Amino acid sequence: MASPHTHRVVILGGGFAGLHAARGLARSAVSITLIDRQNHHTFQPLLYQVATAMLSPANIAAPIRHILASQRNAEVVMGDVTGIDADSRTVHLADGGAVPYDTLIVATGATHSYFGHEQWAAHAPGLKTIDDALQIRRKFLLAFESAERASDDASRRAALTFVVIGAGPTGVELAGAMSEISRSALHHDFRRIDTTTARVVLIEAQDRVLATYPYAASVRALKDLGALGVEVMLESRAVEIDARGVTVVGARIPEPYRIDAGNVIWAAGVKASPIAASLGVPLDPAGRVAVEPDLSVPGHPDIFVAGDLARIDDQRTGSPVPGVAPAAMQMGDHVARLIAARARRSASGAARHPAPFRYKDKGTLATIGRNRAVACVFGGVHSGFIAWLFWALLHVVYLIGFRNRMLTMLEWAWAYVTFSRGARLITGMPKDTPS
Amino acid sequence: MASPHTHRVVILGGGFAGLHAARGLARSAVSITLIDRQNHHTFQPLLYQVATAMLSPANIAAPIRHILASQRNAEVVMGDVTGIDADSRTVHLADGGAVPYDTLIVATGATHSYFGHEQWAAHAPGLKTIDDALQIRRKFLLAFESAERASDDASRRAALTFVVIGAGPTGVELAGAMSEISRSALHHDFRRIDTTTARVVLIEAQDRVLATYPYAASVRALKDLGALGVEVMLESRAVEIDARGVTVVGARIPEPYRIDAGNVIWAAGVKASPIAASLGVPLDPAGRVAVEPDLSVPGHPDIFVAGDLARIDDQRTGSPVPGVAPAAMQMGDHVARLIAARARRSASGAARHPAPFRYKDKGTLATIGRNRAVACVFGGVHSGFIAWLFWALLHVVYLIGFRNRMLTMLEWAWAYVTFSRGARLITGMPKDTPS
Repeated sequence: MASPHTHRVVILGGGFAGLHAARGLARSAVSITLIDRQNHHTFQPLLYQVATAMLSPANIAAPIRHILASQRNAEVVMGDVTGIDADSRTVHLADGGAVPYDTLIVATGATHSYFGHEQWAAHAPGLKTIDDALQIRRKFLLAFESAERASDDASRRAALTFVVIGAGPTGVELAGAMSEISRSALHHDFRRIDTTTARVVLIEAQDRVLATYPYAASVRALKDLGALGVEVMLESRAVEIDARGVTVVGARIPEPYRIDAGNVIWAAGVKASPIAASLGVPLDPAGRVAVEPDLSVPGHPDIFVAGDLARIDDQRTGSPVPGVAPAAMQMGDHVARLIAARARRSASGAARHPAPFRYKDKGTLATIGRNRAVACVFGGVHSGFIAWLFWALLHVVYLIGFRNRMLTMLEWAWAYVTFSRGARLITGMPKDTPS
Repeated sequence: MASPHTHRVVILGGGFAGLHAARGLARSAVSITLIDRQNHHTFQPLLYQVATAMLSPANIAAPIRHILASQRNAEVVMGDVTGIDADSRTVHLADGGAVPYDTLIVATGATHSYFGHEQWAAHAPGLKTIDDALQIRRKFLLAFESAERASDDASRRAALTFVVIGAGPTGVELAGAMSEISRSALHHDFRRIDTTTARVVLIEAQDRVLATYPYAASVRALKDLGALGVEVMLESRAVEIDARGVTVVGARIPEPYRIDAGNVIWAAGVKASPIAASLGVPLDPAGRVAVEPDLSVPGHPDIFVAGDLARIDDQRTGSPVPGVAPAAMQMGDHVARLIAARARRSASGAARHPAPFRYKDKGTLATIGRNRAVACVFGGVHSGFIAWLFWALLHVVYLIGFRNRMLTMLEWAWAYVTFSRGARLITGMPKDTPS
């Protein structure tokens, strides 16, 4: 517990931004309290591999306490933040607890947005947490079981139809993996169905996939998706989602098009964590906080926002810094540096000169299936196996904790060699769930 | 699908008995349908390691379809069996399906029995499935989170008290692992609580732990449990279990003894799968089928029972064959041999001479913590690190599928070297569960 004179830094969220902020303050004379609803940090860029039964949850997640175990100035609280009281400098928790702070870092990220159609959530789960991934994995695997038992062609076809809405990196990677696992790993396990006939449809409102990537990457990704058997519908959007499928309208479709599908996955909309609203400052339409150049909240120099929740323009390009893992890490690092400098200055009595955040775009990557990827790095767009290898190495290096790194590498190597999927367990069936 | 002339073997249950029966018929001219409620085979002897966050579910489970993928005379159905109609030789499924058989193998195993106190199930989960293990893991890990946030000593102590009821192999292994993980792996992760003060109480109705093992093994296991800090209460039983703890009475306790505990785990009673009742034959008090010497059901030579559901005496010792994995495997093998022989004879027209089942007791093993185990093999009782190593190798060798074997070995080696627990994720929180 902090002595009365120690500067108290409270961090909300144990994602990339929150963890980088905590670690960046390891040598500062501050006391850190990191609060997260989950007990674990999740390596979100690989969630789709849990959802498609390639990796186990433990391969891409690690307990936050364990990551920070040796950082003696940090403590971790598993708790649900219900509000921020900026006047009294207090964070309120769902269990009634109140945590006071001197400096607050809000890094609670983003969740899915169904653009006002919240009733779609029940039929089209999104992919933000381990539990989301396990739910999608269960539904994905059950689809083949249900197709194997189907008594008529129409229900068999519907069970084997998978619709992914949104062709950003998550949607592209999910659709590619689902199509590939159907065509390869599952092929020999069934007797009555031909899993290679599974239909994967990727629906995108814009006129290209990976719309935030360079144009050449979109072209290449579209080609790779086609090679894996994914049907891509561009300039299209869902107007109805229910338990039996999706209705799509689009610029290239003369009339509303119905897809009977047992599985619909939502990879389209993102909205900021609702906790931002309790700050009482203006939010952008996605609910993000338009922060000052140093990532502090306007009018609240003692509150910073880092990660997906922050809305800030890239000073170099003028466009918004994207909601990707490297940006979140850089923001966490930046905030930690500012707070560490303040702590040193407050000891020496010097004035405050906050440095603005500068996003370093190290390139973008997306993988499509076993050995296809697009990498926008080193000033060009690369594709194919070399890009895939680059992608794999980069992700493994970034995975937090050596243990996960080693096991993830092995799982991948094994899946690559044998082309089977190890984590193909259907767990958490609703009837077995404790109420 | 079977041609009209192929002998149809239907197997209920993809545990050790069912899988061994299916594999034993791989070269026979029969068609096999294996039906299981789960999509995966679970290596039950290691479930307690999933429940204590040492292994991931995928390390000890594999899709049944995948295990039987290359056996072309076998198909797998994921389905819930609701009844057996022995007259019409049909198995009924919950989805309305009916599966006809010529020979039936019932290998649906056993589940927990609360001895008529079914209301205890909500407070004291048992450990039979992967979902059970994940539920126990979640509650076990949440106990430390709740203790870290506790505002008073009494609730902190209750959160850090774990009661295991039943000191058979599962109870002994669970209690040992829980005490050890509290004292080692979790020790550095918390700031406000001392996890080494966690209290693990093991309650057993008989006068020794591992009552079915040789006496020397019980003595050694009791000593090892003590060394790990487990409190063992012998000749005691629970008379009340609620959300706040357990009340115990016993020969060595003058009056009912209350233990306030956030976690109670049930490892005491076992009752046979209810499907046996639909056979219309006499069952023993635990619901098992008293089978003929060849494992067939009295009056039904076309129905066999294998595994934990079968009640049969060991011809050598006169005592019942125990409900352990090696016995289930041997029964599955035996039934497969009988059916294969019948199939050959029906081709040649020879008469039927069913061989009786003979249980080969290859010894019993239990592990208590990181490097303690008792092994009753080669005519003696062995203990300590050598017994542990023997236990570890044996279990890894038995694990189905090379991939699991390799990863399990690595997880163990890693946990052994670093003394941390990798799978320490709290997932499946009730609020995130789809309704």
